[in-house]
Amino acid sequence: MNHYFILHSRRNKQLPMAGNSLGQLFRITTFGESHGPGIGVVIDGCPPQVSLDPAAIQHQLSRRRPGQSTITTQRDESDAFEFLSGVIDNVTTGAPLTIWIPNKDQRSKDYDHIRKAFRPSHSDYTYQTKYGIRDVRGGGRSSARETAARVAAGAVARQVLNHHGIDIVAYVDSVGTISMPPSDKKWSEADVDSNIVRCPDETVAAEMISAIEDVRDDGDTLGGVITCNVRNCPVGLGEPVYDKLHAELGKAMLSINACKGFEIGSGFDGTRMRGSEHNDPFTSNGGVIRTTSNHSGGVQGGISNGMDIVCRVAFKPVSTLMKSQESVNTEGENVTVEGKGRHDPCVVPRAVPIVEAMAAMVILDHLLRYRATMPV
Amino acid sequence: MNHYFILHSRRNKQLPMAGNSLGQLFRITTFGESHGPGIGVVIDGCPPQVSLDPAAIQHQLSRRRPGQSTITTQRDESDAFEFLSGVIDNVTTGAPLTIWIPNKDQRSKDYDHIRKAFRPSHSDYTYQTKYGIRDVRGGGRSSARETAARVAAGAVARQVLNHHGIDIVAYVDSVGTISMPPSDKKWSEADVDSNIVRCPDETVAAEMISAIEDVRDDGDTLGGVITCNVRNCPVGLGEPVYDKLHAELGKAMLSINACKGFEIGSGFDGTRMRGSEHNDPFTSNGGVIRTTSNHSGGVQGGISNGMDIVCRVAFKPVSTLMKSQESVNTEGENVTVEGKGRHDPCVVPRAVPIVEAMAAMVILDHLLRYRATMPV
Amino acid sequence: MNHYFILHSRRNKQLPMAGNSLGQLFRITTFGESHGPGIGVVIDGCPPQVSLDPAAIQHQLSRRRPGQSTITTQRDESDAFEFLSGVIDNVTTGAPLTIWIPNKDQRSKDYDHIRKAFRPSHSDYTYQTKYGIRDVRGGGRSSARETAARVAAGAVARQVLNHHGIDIVAYVDSVGTISMPPSDKKWSEADVDSNIVRCPDETVAAEMISAIEDVRDDGDTLGGVITCNVRNCPVGLGEPVYDKLHAELGKAMLSINACKGFEIGSGFDGTRMRGSEHNDPFTSNGGVIRTTSNHSGGVQGGISNGMDIVCRVAFKPVSTLMKSQESVNTEGENVTVEGKGRHDPCVVPRAVPIVEAMAAMVILDHLLRYRATMPV
Amino acid sequence: MNHYFILHSRRNKQLPMAGNSLGQLFRITTFGESHGPGIGVVIDGCPPQVSLDPAAIQHQLSRRRPGQSTITTQRDESDAFEFLSGVIDNVTTGAPLTIWIPNKDQRSKDYDHIRKAFRPSHSDYTYQTKYGIRDVRGGGRSSARETAARVAAGAVARQVLNHHGIDIVAYVDSVGTISMPPSDKKWSEADVDSNIVRCPDETVAAEMISAIEDVRDDGDTLGGVITCNVRNCPVGLGEPVYDKLHAELGKAMLSINACKGFEIGSGFDGTRMRGSEHNDPFTSNGGVIRTTSNHSGGVQGGISNGMDIVCRVAFKPVSTLMKSQESVNTEGENVTVEGKGRHDPCVVPRAVPIVEAMAAMVILDHLLRYRATMPV
Repeated sequence: MNHYFILHSRRNKQLPMAGNSLGQLFRITTFGESHGPGIGVVIDGCPPQVSLDPAAIQHQLSRRRPGQSTITTQRDESDAFEFLSGVIDNVTTGAPLTIWIPNKDQRSKDYDHIRKAFRPSHSDYTYQTKYGIRDVRGGGRSSARETAARVAAGAVARQVLNHHGIDIVAYVDSVGTISMPPSDKKWSEADVDSNIVRCPDETVAAEMISAIEDVRDDGDTLGGVITCNVRNCPVGLGEPVYDKLHAELGKAMLSINACKGFEIGSGFDGTRMRGSEHNDPFTSNGGVIRTTSNHSGGVQGGISNGMDIVCRVAFKPVSTLMKSQESVNTEGENVTVEGKGRHDPCVVPRAVPIVEAMAAMVILDHLLRYRATMPV
Repeated sequence: MNHYFILHSRRNKQLPMAGNSLGQLFRITTFGESHGPGIGVVIDGCPPQVSLDPAAIQHQLSRRRPGQSTITTQRDESDAFEFLSGVIDNVTTGAPLTIWIPNKDQRSKDYDHIRKAFRPSHSDYTYQTKYGIRDVRGGGRSSARETAARVAAGAVARQVLNHHGIDIVAYVDSVGTISMPPSDKKWSEADVDSNIVRCPDETVAAEMISAIEDVRDDGDTLGGVITCNVRNCPVGLGEPVYDKLHAELGKAMLSINACKGFEIGSGFDGTRMRGSEHNDPFTSNGGVIRTTSNHSGGVQGGISNGMDIVCRVAFKPVSTLMKSQESVNTEGENVTVEGKGRHDPCVVPRAVPIVEAMAAMVILDHLLRYRATMPV
Repeated sequence: MNHYFILHSRRNKQLPMAGNSLGQLFRITTFGESHGPGIGVVIDGCPPQVSLDPAAIQHQLSRRRPGQSTITTQRDESDAFEFLSGVIDNVTTGAPLTIWIPNKDQRSKDYDHIRKAFRPSHSDYTYQTKYGIRDVRGGGRSSARETAARVAAGAVARQVLNHHGIDIVAYVDSVGTISMPPSDKKWSEADVDSNIVRCPDETVAAEMISAIEDVRDDGDTLGGVITCNVRNCPVGLGEPVYDKLHAELGKAMLSINACKGFEIGSGFDGTRMRGSEHNDPFTSNGGVIRTTSNHSGGVQGGISNGMDIVCRVAFKPVSTLMKSQESVNTEGENVTVEGKGRHDPCVVPRAVPIVEAMAAMVILDHLLRYRATMPV
Repeated sequence: MNHYFILHSRRNKQLPMAGNSLGQLFRITTFGESHGPGIGVVIDGCPPQVSLDPAAIQHQLSRRRPGQSTITTQRDESDAFEFLSGVIDNVTTGAPLTIWIPNKDQRSKDYDHIRKAFRPSHSDYTYQTKYGIRDVRGGGRSSARETAARVAAGAVARQVLNHHGIDIVAYVDSVGTISMPPSDKKWSEADVDSNIVRCPDETVAAEMISAIEDVRDDGDTLGGVITCNVRNCPVGLGEPVYDKLHAELGKAMLSINACKGFEIGSGFDGTRMRGSEHNDPFTSNGGVIRTTSNHSGGVQGGISNGMDIVCRVAFKPVSTLMKSQESVNTEGENVTVEGKGRHDPCVVPRAVPIVEAMAAMVILDHLLRYRATMPV
């Protein structure tokens, strides 16, 4: 049996495009396309009586927005948002909270050259095959523009978490072959945002920026790794079998465009250690329990143990190049696809607030699940 | 605010232990404890009229069973299973299919020494804190014994997938610091099972076995990495946003005991490549489309593209040592925990069928979701 | 223990208001408040490549809209809708399809008198107690205005069902004590809409209209019963245990504002029959199987049997009266609540398209679940 | 288009039989067939540290068991249960709690006559058509034997609810045309169980028993109505839109075998009242708020209001008759089906504990959802 796709053979099939929701008790559903009227998110399960700071939501959207620096795409979106439901005078009512971010700077004709061709390592081919219809204008639903909705919803989640003292900070750990040295420093958002690549080590950051500028000038792209820390997370979040906290974090991160890998704590490096080195000894100081190392990354048996949650997220180099590439078209013919449009030479600086947003939503969802408590 | 756990303070809380299900249309719910009467799984959504081969289920259980070789735990479980529901004469009816695996060789007194102490990097502490009650006998629900249920359900899924020509093979890629060289060979289960460590490269396998024997004799443990391939997967599985195929695979793998990392395709290594190297060019041969490289690992835009699905799963070294370790007890006092009981010096040889089972269930679930087709 | 509400005692609690979604494969999430910017719905799971007729959606919205006749509320909403996502040139792409219906004719000051008082048999008291915050302007989320979103989503579902030949017609069976005589006639939408009360029996309709006018002039209200028929439904929809087709229809109908009862087939009357009268004999004509009576209402063992699905839905008299009523205020004091605002004297004429919409969404969801077929 | 079933045409389709779960946070999955090894249920989400009384579970199973009196089926099942997981010394651990009830008194040959014929108003025809395979022995999964699992899980839920002071009592309100007069009395389980028909009005009960004996001697059957009360339910259970408390209760009840209708509060009768009669005035006594009537049935706006929850559940007459009936066979030929086997002449006396169990599970699920509270 040959499973390589025979073009035309599935054109009459129609498959619903579901799976646009995440979370159980804090549950988001996102909608909207890159070149439609806008991008939105409905949050079902947001606690009521939370006084939201719209500026803090806008701040996170601005950290993700295109056009923010010389090393990002030059598409110019202000990403100004509005509430469509769920608040009165910026206080949540508990009703579904909807955030709407209109699109402004679409250039749909930039995509005419791929109307009948598939860009390598994009979703053009798989979408066309699965749905028999494809929104070529900016990739429609597959566009990273969808992540604006994630950042907006995550910014709401963060405000709820902040009331509980839980804090989330991510930063760029590596770009291409350039990596930060290991550090125990507790970086703040100000540290991270002190430069345009969002690596808190200034020296390394400068190298990263230079490397990104180099590939940009070549019409090429780079990948990288983001480290995310969740601090002050209480003991007890996560379910013990299939909904382990790091499994849920992993799924959330792997669902971000271009993500190819996820690690908790020691991750792949930890596989090269002996158990006696890797185990995190417990110690008690007046009944206050902590571990003296944190190879577990803050999660044991799928449940948070009160230490910092530490995870790493791998992003491949952006697929859209300003170079010609070999590919095929919708007629199944070999073609050359030109490099065109406005795109990021490296996605990781803009992905930092996305990673934080995903972490915030998973943690809040599990905090709500944790609160589903039943004292007799 | 201090989120380190203050012992005793949450003893009166009661939290349900949910999250024992996985999948949407092919949905499993597992139950049972390490030292209870047995381990079971209900499959809701198994297609009817599938003639099951019980020997093939038993075969996979035997690949996972303890006591199978000199480098695994010596707990002796035959893991003979029975159907409690869902079949008539081994043919599925579509009704919930329940598989029950009685426990035989429990030694609950092996756990008396941890009744009041927390083993480092185990779930003892997080379970005790979250639930206020803990099944100390073998870890109860946190025991890797739960994975027998996964393997049984996965063995059912594989038989359905086999009817569709889809084939899944995993193997041990590294143990500690010993890794297989890269290879394009399409390993068969026979290749993998030709030795007790389940690494298909015989020379490397011998080194791995020797390394495991060394740590075993030290009372120590090793981790490792498993690579999993799904072959002949049709184009179109996976949902485009939150339920991307690799995000669902990632969650499933990260939910396995001791798993700390997951990669699809190029993974973390891919972050060090340029886009022009990393992109997988499409090529067409008479309308049959494939890519000439597979850094994508068979998934693009969250949807399978017809190439082999390739993922890697990282397992930490086993936490249970035959050595004394520093820890704390349930009274919040510093104590030394002895090394006792029967445990694996390295979990990866037995984890191979578990990884395959998780892959099988995710792929079948998405195959069923894919089939929810709606031709007008 | 006394479970009557002690006012003030739960003010500090915050509960998320979830449960704004319905369906599994055709899944809607609604949002928006009566006096916010508008009402919306996201459909996740709409099949792609369906050419939608916007006029048909608008038509159903107009059948539900306030101000449509002399026997409905005089709030004047055109209920003009727009697509926010999911279509290109009115063809569905399979992406989340979002419909937005802006509010136009709010009169929020009509609600000042209930800012601190609870209207009897409304949700004022239960919302205030549960959430500690309440959108007094039109009832916020509890307003029947939410049903506009249901009708819009249902109108999409109907267009998909029409491609499969499935047709849904509901009508007003009784208003107060005035009932239609039993009839086997297959009423069309034109029959139903031939008068403003939507009872296809012209004589009875005239009586109903007169009765509604009478209570309206009294500042009082009436309830009624709607019968809904689904025609040409294939055999096999519905799941056999908890998701029986009529259980899902029942939940959907009971979730409509003011609904207090649901029957399938013979319903409560059937409890007074003997089995030998009630059973529906099968008969075959050239291999085409049908039943000679339909007390089952088209569902047997929770699964559609190919006969017309027939259900009945009970609506209580509208709670908002133009009369003063005894009640309590938010301080727990006994008060008199005045009758104010613009409201329906009888909800059933406008509920007909809502009942049809709920039926359409449940049937389509199960049609998609049915299509999740797995031929080996 | 003709949707009547053409026999043979769908034999090659295979549909998974899903939908065997109910609830979100207190979630049950049932499994097992009438004539397989037994019936079971996994409860995922049972709170830990609850000391269960096994006798109370057995007591409810005995109230449902066949053979309990002269007016029920004479199949003799002790319905003795065992815990397969989730408890240590009868205390819940929070892990999935599995209850297993072995079958004892199957007589599979009683079903040989329907191997190739469809019993009228049974699920034989719809199952055969949907799944292409059917467990003829006792109806397999469609058998009311599945309700034993509901009663067992409900008995666990009731013990948790009892700790919260919540109490559930149901009783037989009517059998055929014989109904209890309206009464405000708060019946206890002892009142209900004082006679074999479970109607607490002794005079009416005697008439009901006599009527059932009459139809039994005729080989015929009767239906009836059960009223269910939930007392001391706190204010605030239920979600405001699709998961309204009475919508969830309705779905749960309608999923019981033979159930054809559901009402909350005034139900269908309430449609004949005016709003001014039907509204329930609030009154306050020292800040304790209640309503002076209860047409709402304890639920307003989908949320419990602290008054007794009152609902009514309609059961059709049992389909299995000891009479010959006209039907068709699997070849699509007209045939006569004989009356054979052991069956209930009226299901309502045994359905009382089932109705209570469904109510208990819905209420507990919503109590857990309610507890998912988030104080900032």
